[in-house]
Parts: sequence; structure tokens; C-alpha cells
Amino acid sequence: MTWNRVDRARFHRLFYPEVPVVVTVGVNGRVGAMPAIWCMPLSFDPPLIGIAIAPEHETYKMIMRAGSFVVNWLDYSHAEQVGELGEISAKEYPQKLAAVGLNVLKKEKRSQPLIEEASAVLECRMLEKHRTGTHELIVAEVANAFAKDYFHDYWDYSKYRPLLYAGTTGKKRKSWRFMSTRRKTAGVTQRHGS
Amino acid sequence: MTWNRVDRARFHRLFYPEVPVVVTVGVNGRVGAMPAIWCMPLSFDPPLIGIAIAPEHETYKMIMRAGSFVVNWLDYSHAEQVGELGEISAKEYPQKLAAVGLNVLKKEKRSQPLIEEASAVLECRMLEKHRTGTHELIVAEVANAFAKDYFHDYWDYSKYRPLLYAGTTGKKRKSWRFMSTRRKTAGVTQRHGS
Repeated sequence: MTWNRVDRARFHRLFYPEVPVVVTVGVNGRVGAMPAIWCMPLSFDPPLIGIAIAPEHETYKMIMRAGSFVVNWLDYSHAEQVGELGEISAKEYPQKLAAVGLNVLKKEKRSQPLIEEASAVLECRMLEKHRTGTHELIVAEVANAFAKDYFHDYWDYSKYRPLLYAGTTGKKRKSWRFMSTRRKTAGVTQRHGS
Repeated sequence: MTWNRVDRARFHRLFYPEVPVVVTVGVNGRVGAMPAIWCMPLSFDPPLIGIAIAPEHETYKMIMRAGSFVVNWLDYSHAEQVGELGEISAKEYPQKLAAVGLNVLKKEKRSQPLIEEASAVLECRMLEKHRTGTHELIVAEVANAFAKDYFHDYWDYSKYRPLLYAGTTGKKRKSWRFMSTRRKTAGVTQRHGS
């Protein structure tokens, strides 16, 4: 089968499907929250992540002010809310989580808002940022990580249903496309040792 | 449900499942190839990607010499080969792709090796790198992108079966865990316009 050239403006869609995270940040009583898919680990020790965000986003500006933020994973059952968070701006909605029916964890006094419905969260401290074209890459240290009972050494996929983002389609009305995973995993035993 | 603290040494597993890519590079007749999951877009225009690699890897050293590399997506049918590429080093296998039964595209004369079996490829030019703890983050520009017939504006998931990496488990003998996706996607229509 032959390859076709892919318009460079669409190259990022080759990375689909990707598990989205929701980035949350609180500044002066306002709660910002936006879905992001350009987020990945950058180091084991110290534990670092990188997240690329377009600086026009109000949530980005709030992160710059706070210097810290939270990365939240919501599972497949929250697909609709993750999509909605991408549509509305913290400019018009000072309480973005509440606006889509998600709750800020109230139990403990944390410096930044954790989503109560999240399967896992990372509390992050911004270390540096690099301008990369249309986006800013924020490098942050993971200060604390928490996950629900179905994560031990790994996710228990019989209980955790990952949410996979597959793009925003539709001409008249935009629609977020999400996929889920098959529960069964395939094991490939290493032959060469190590 | 309560959250448990996650050992910071395991925080990267919260990002699972992730679609792995295979990074290829050719230097002096040798072909390096390694699976990587810490790879994501960093900018739409110019089209930039970031990939974090531990600098001990022979493939990393080859990228430093070449100044360019290719990002290849292999689908679920190639799970075993992607796993094997992670086990062997370019030090002992000067032709890593051939060692696991994958082919370098011969048709066209390209500056770097493209995997013939890949569903899509990005030809990348290294722009800069940043040390981030245990890893080096390479920022690269996408010079060319190619994909097989089943990618148009988006992947056609009735034909493309994404490969999802879910960790390396097993005590006695390591085993790579891979997942696949459900074919059906869920559409969440945007309510707030935009």
C-alpha cells in the first residue's frame, strides 16, 4: 500500500487516539480547567512532565499567575464533560468545573483544585517554559500523585476505562470524537532478556 | 472512592495507555530504531514535535549525529516487533529493523529510513534540545508527513487499529502489555458553539 502526503497542518492527528487530561488551576477564587492532549512525562527522577498549551487560553494565563497546576485524568464516563470543558472559556465561566457538573475535592486543603471525579491527579509545580511555535511548553515537577483504588503498580483495566480522544469532527456543528479501549491486553514476552 | 498516594517513581504509568511510535535514524549504513511513548506535537505552525529520550540509548546518540530522524506509527498487528525493538540495542544490532523483521522503504531515496510497514511517518529535523532530568527533550520540525490510504482528514478506525502501550509487567520474564481500541467512537456534540 502506498503512502499519501499528509498536509502538515494535520500532522498532529496522526498521534490520535490520545488520552486527554484536564488541567486545573485556581487563582483568586476562580477555577480554570481545560482539556489537553499534548501532555507527557519528561523524566523519571526528578518526576517531570511537559504540557504544551496555546498561550491565548485563559487557563494558561492562570497557570502563569499561580506557578502550579493539577493534571487530572477523567475516565470514559466523563467524555461529555471533558468535551464541554474544551468549549467554554474561564473568561466567561469563573467556575469552569461547576459549569460542567464536576466538583472540586473539598476534603483536604490543597493549593490547587483537584477534580473529585478524577481517576488520578498530579500536583505540579512549574519549573520552566519554552516557546515552541504556536504553543508554550511548560516543564513542571510532579510534587504529589494520587489515584483511585484501581491503580496499584498499573491501572486495573477491568475497572478503569480510559478515555481516548480521536479528534473534533463535523462541519455544521463540531463534535468531539472519543474512543474506549478493549479490556483484554496482549502480552508480548521479551525474548532477548533484559 | 478515596485516592491513594502514587509512588512518584510510578507517576508516568498514569499516562497509560499511550500509542507508541518507533523512532528511526540512519548513520553510516547503520539503522537505529527504538520505540518511544514520550512523543507529542508541540506546535501547529511551524509543525513541531517533542520527543523525550534517555541519552544512554544508542539511537539517541545516532540522532545527535544525524540531526534528523523519522517517527513511525506501527499498528496493532506489529505489537510484537515494537516490543522487540525495545529489547535490543543498536550497539549489538547494526540493522535493528531487519533484526525484528521490519523493512526500510526502498522505493524512494530518503535521507532517513522509513519503515515500510508503518501506517504513517514524520520526517523530522532536530531544532533544539533541553535536558529534563533523566531524559533529553528533542524539539524537531516536521519536514514531511506521509500516511497510508486509511488516513484522510482523520484515521479511518475501521481500517487502522491503533496500538496502545500499557506497560511492561512480569517479574521473572518481562512482558510488554498492549491494548487495542474499540472500533466504535462516541460523538459528543458541542453545545456551546465555537
